[in-house]
Amino acid sequence: VTTALIGLDWGSTHLRAYRYDSGGQVEDKRAFPHGIRRLPEGGFAEAFAQAVDQWPDVPVLACGMVGSRNGWKEVPYLDTPTGVDRLAGALTRFEAPDGRRIHLVPGLRDPLRPDVMRGEETQVVGALAATPAIGQRGCLLLPGTHSKWVSLREGAVTGFATVMTGELYGVLLQHSILGAQLPESSDDEQAFHGGVVAARDSAAAGALSRVFSARALMLDGVLPPSSVADYLSGLLIGDELRIALAAGWVDPRTPVQMVGEGALCERYLKAAAIFGIDIDTAPDHTTAHGLWRIATAAGLVSPLATA
Amino acid sequence: VTTALIGLDWGSTHLRAYRYDSGGQVEDKRAFPHGIRRLPEGGFAEAFAQAVDQWPDVPVLACGMVGSRNGWKEVPYLDTPTGVDRLAGALTRFEAPDGRRIHLVPGLRDPLRPDVMRGEETQVVGALAATPAIGQRGCLLLPGTHSKWVSLREGAVTGFATVMTGELYGVLLQHSILGAQLPESSDDEQAFHGGVVAARDSAAAGALSRVFSARALMLDGVLPPSSVADYLSGLLIGDELRIALAAGWVDPRTPVQMVGEGALCERYLKAAAIFGIDIDTAPDHTTAHGLWRIATAAGLVSPLATA
Repeated sequence: VTTALIGLDWGSTHLRAYRYDSGGQVEDKRAFPHGIRRLPEGGFAEAFAQAVDQWPDVPVLACGMVGSRNGWKEVPYLDTPTGVDRLAGALTRFEAPDGRRIHLVPGLRDPLRPDVMRGEETQVVGALAATPAIGQRGCLLLPGTHSKWVSLREGAVTGFATVMTGELYGVLLQHSILGAQLPESSDDEQAFHGGVVAARDSAAAGALSRVFSARALMLDGVLPPSSVADYLSGLLIGDELRIALAAGWVDPRTPVQMVGEGALCERYLKAAAIFGIDIDTAPDHTTAHGLWRIATAAGLVSPLATA
Repeated sequence: VTTALIGLDWGSTHLRAYRYDSGGQVEDKRAFPHGIRRLPEGGFAEAFAQAVDQWPDVPVLACGMVGSRNGWKEVPYLDTPTGVDRLAGALTRFEAPDGRRIHLVPGLRDPLRPDVMRGEETQVVGALAATPAIGQRGCLLLPGTHSKWVSLREGAVTGFATVMTGELYGVLLQHSILGAQLPESSDDEQAFHGGVVAARDSAAAGALSRVFSARALMLDGVLPPSSVADYLSGLLIGDELRIALAAGWVDPRTPVQMVGEGALCERYLKAAAIFGIDIDTAPDHTTAHGLWRIATAAGLVSPLATA
């Protein structure tokens, strides 16, 4: 097996490294806690050296917060609309201390909102490679700490929006009165459902008009303290879906394509059912696929190798 | 001067004590940091002893979190609709270790939302005593950490809603990415204005659909880092007003009566002007007035004394 490319998914809290063969298959992968906020002694160079240790000296393509202002090297955002070819043409190249050539994928900027992303642009490319149909006219949902709703047309990202659902859930639970003195969460599906319905019924006022009900219901004895977190989760995920409908991010004629799997995506699926939003799911290997796809478009790997 | 009553405004973070003469005038007042979450060694009894030290042994009326589950003695909530007479009839009486008689004002519960308040019910009574007209059919706004929007009819609280604007502002700025590595706030009026307009223009989607723009605008160089806090303040206060309109808490025929003064109320006035909401202001001595009014209705002080 010939190694053709090393890919790095380098975010705030994680660093994942992929070694690809000449056909684009991931032959080996490694994960480190060395996100750009959690670098080891020796900083970026040391984290990088560990990530690629013993791997051949082939082109390296990295995406995510490594290209941000607080990253290894700042890469300017690329304005939407942007397809894979513009992304591939805007890589920033530099040399690591060990002499390896590193290429950084730019983040995207939606100048109209304004909004920004770093790393998700590569997930989008990967999702489009797996399901080209949604690129014609579709909506991608990348749920998480900072959920992204991405509009696609003719293979390009035409715009996107961030909803800080995951981070808001975390700060309210850890630092606000809503989370004060709560026992461990009980995984209460009914409470989650109640939160989603409360968000839906909040209509144009929105869930911030009801978020204090998480405490009032608990004081009332209606919501057990161990269920407050699930209620709040339902309220905030529900509000994200309410927002997506109100803002027109969802095209009623086309299902939303959600990238990801696991417990969080299950929550989005349940909430979407309550809202009558049709969601399809795509597996979450999209960053690895996206890195390969961008590397191919940028000519970092031989087009023949992908045949 | 005869002391007729001692009033205590005892919240989570403060304890204010008032000594009234027989005409209801505040003859003396004291302030302590001894909110129920910041009690001195010796707990409630010690905080109380300091608050009333050397004052005559007259009836004591207290409102606020002192009557909550984590307070000195829990007082059940009273359901809306509720006027001053029902409040006065539902006081909880007990004896302090020093033998003084303490009466606690119940908090209110709106069973329909559900929502709760403790302490603000006494502010409402005080505001109604100062401006009886709004009690006929009006809307009171008590801005703060947990802003309250109170509906009034024929002198009674018919319902209310909490928006956690102040607390949300605090946790986002202190604990989320939006506040990461910001310098001291510059008091940027233009940034505040921009945040209010963004909230207004978010329409039915609401400001959570745009809160990440506080970071995107800063990364763009449009918003100086020292102005992010003011932008966020405008966005969240603006969203509270947007919510109040969308939820129908504001009656377009009647101005909103805001209780309070100072910088925060100035912000609400500026934001309300952008939304075209008419706000009148009432001075913020309402808790002291409200305690006296409730004590009178409860017969703790002689009705003759108020003549």
